[in-house]
Amino acid sequence: MSSLLQTFIQTNQPLIEQKLDLLIKELKAPSELKKAMAYSLQAGGKRIRPLYTLAVLEELEVQNEDAIVVACTIEMIHTYSLIHDDLPCMDDDDLRRGKPTNHIVFGEALAVLAGDALVTLAFGIIARLNNLKAEQKVQLTNQLSYAAGAEGMVGGQVLDMLGEGKSLSLSELEEVHVNKTGALLSFSILAGGIIADANEEIMQALKDYAFHIGLAFQIQDDILDIEGTSEELGKTAGKDVLSEKNTYPSILTLDGAKEQLQKQYNLAINALQTVNLQEGLLLEIANYITKRSN
Amino acid sequence: MSSLLQTFIQTNQPLIEQKLDLLIKELKAPSELKKAMAYSLQAGGKRIRPLYTLAVLEELEVQNEDAIVVACTIEMIHTYSLIHDDLPCMDDDDLRRGKPTNHIVFGEALAVLAGDALVTLAFGIIARLNNLKAEQKVQLTNQLSYAAGAEGMVGGQVLDMLGEGKSLSLSELEEVHVNKTGALLSFSILAGGIIADANEEIMQALKDYAFHIGLAFQIQDDILDIEGTSEELGKTAGKDVLSEKNTYPSILTLDGAKEQLQKQYNLAINALQTVNLQEGLLLEIANYITKRSN
Repeated sequence: MSSLLQTFIQTNQPLIEQKLDLLIKELKAPSELKKAMAYSLQAGGKRIRPLYTLAVLEELEVQNEDAIVVACTIEMIHTYSLIHDDLPCMDDDDLRRGKPTNHIVFGEALAVLAGDALVTLAFGIIARLNNLKAEQKVQLTNQLSYAAGAEGMVGGQVLDMLGEGKSLSLSELEEVHVNKTGALLSFSILAGGIIADANEEIMQALKDYAFHIGLAFQIQDDILDIEGTSEELGKTAGKDVLSEKNTYPSILTLDGAKEQLQKQYNLAINALQTVNLQEGLLLEIANYITKRSN
Repeated sequence: MSSLLQTFIQTNQPLIEQKLDLLIKELKAPSELKKAMAYSLQAGGKRIRPLYTLAVLEELEVQNEDAIVVACTIEMIHTYSLIHDDLPCMDDDDLRRGKPTNHIVFGEALAVLAGDALVTLAFGIIARLNNLKAEQKVQLTNQLSYAAGAEGMVGGQVLDMLGEGKSLSLSELEEVHVNKTGALLSFSILAGGIIADANEEIMQALKDYAFHIGLAFQIQDDILDIEGTSEELGKTAGKDVLSEKNTYPSILTLDGAKEQLQKQYNLAINALQTVNLQEGLLLEIANYITKRSN
């Protein structure tokens, strides 16, 4: 990791985690519910989505106190999706990031409700921001709803579920990922542009960059399941192969997946070049994502 | 039921149901997911919340094409909460309004995701309205998030769950209901005021009316569980007593609950009088709610 990115992460990751903590603490809600919400929010993770929002603002040289709050709402949506994903009726995972999953600690009912509370809170927090115009808040809400809902993340989870046990084509697999993980990752990047009131040209470049880096992220995830160790990943490695899951390597071979990864990476960087953002944090994060070991 | 209210319901209920249908149909999402979302939305019910939003606008003599869409988002939130509530890990109900519950028809995983998609869609739809100012959309989003989330409905569900098997005091029971059912019902009334750009005095009266009618609604629900038949209710009658649930009758006796119902009804009507809205639909709906048999 470059020292630029390292400094950026070391500065902002703790700020994101403090803010997440505060946003739950100040809720006037049953303490058991708050504990369940905070537990999964504080269970670590790379915080790639909120970091992306902040990175875009830094690259566009715009400061806005609300940016970190918006960043946190995206982490809330991501976290709620993990809590529901891990449920016995879904992926039935006991372990997430090396820790017991939410329903293992708090029971299934509270896990469902903690997820429900997180998604609902995310939208409320955006509505209550002080340093954005009403139009910007509406735009964020609109895009976040698309990214997180039936036409984005939730839809992708359904496609993923329906595709289990079937052989998907490359384009079908891509559709799963563009929705399941790509849409929210993309939103985290676009949110930076919306907060910065960026012009159309920049928004388009961010959109293209986000699309390709989202796919690259997923391809690397699939590669790591084969090449990584359980210890590095904080979850069981090799699970995809065992469960005969549709992945980039299963469709394209491992070498083909690596080639596809490189292709998506190149397209992402090309998009940055159109608006002269090809140096700096957005490049560094792209490098990090495609070379990470967890 | 008065003929005024009857006409109002007969006119608007089908419009709400058509609009709900359309809002799901136009989604670019997996058809299985859309089916699961539509199934519970179309499973009947009194549509009290969306009708309330429209009734407030009618009483304030304001017309706005977006009102019915906002009304539908509230029904979406209500429906998602029922889908998640019915899950095996929650209330484990097989039957709702006389029909198999969502997870019985579509499986638990899709039921969780259909609920998730509905709550997320509700916020997106508000952001995409055409006939409201951005400030009004932000206000609706803000209030809806409070009403539906950890500080409202979801928080109330948690309190209800934690209270199971314990003897609650009247004020503890009230706290459950104010959050679990009252908050969203209140929002449906306030939303009408927000859409109509009502002044502060009217908003306060609507808020007070909503608070008391919300409690009255719940008390009548509890009374119906004792006095109603399963056929009338479309769900198993007498379930509260069997499961030793905390209810108004269990704390206050049946007569005491009826007295409390009358008290809350009177307070609701008093609130309407402060802004000269004590005749018309808001009175009629209050009458209907406190005298209904299902």
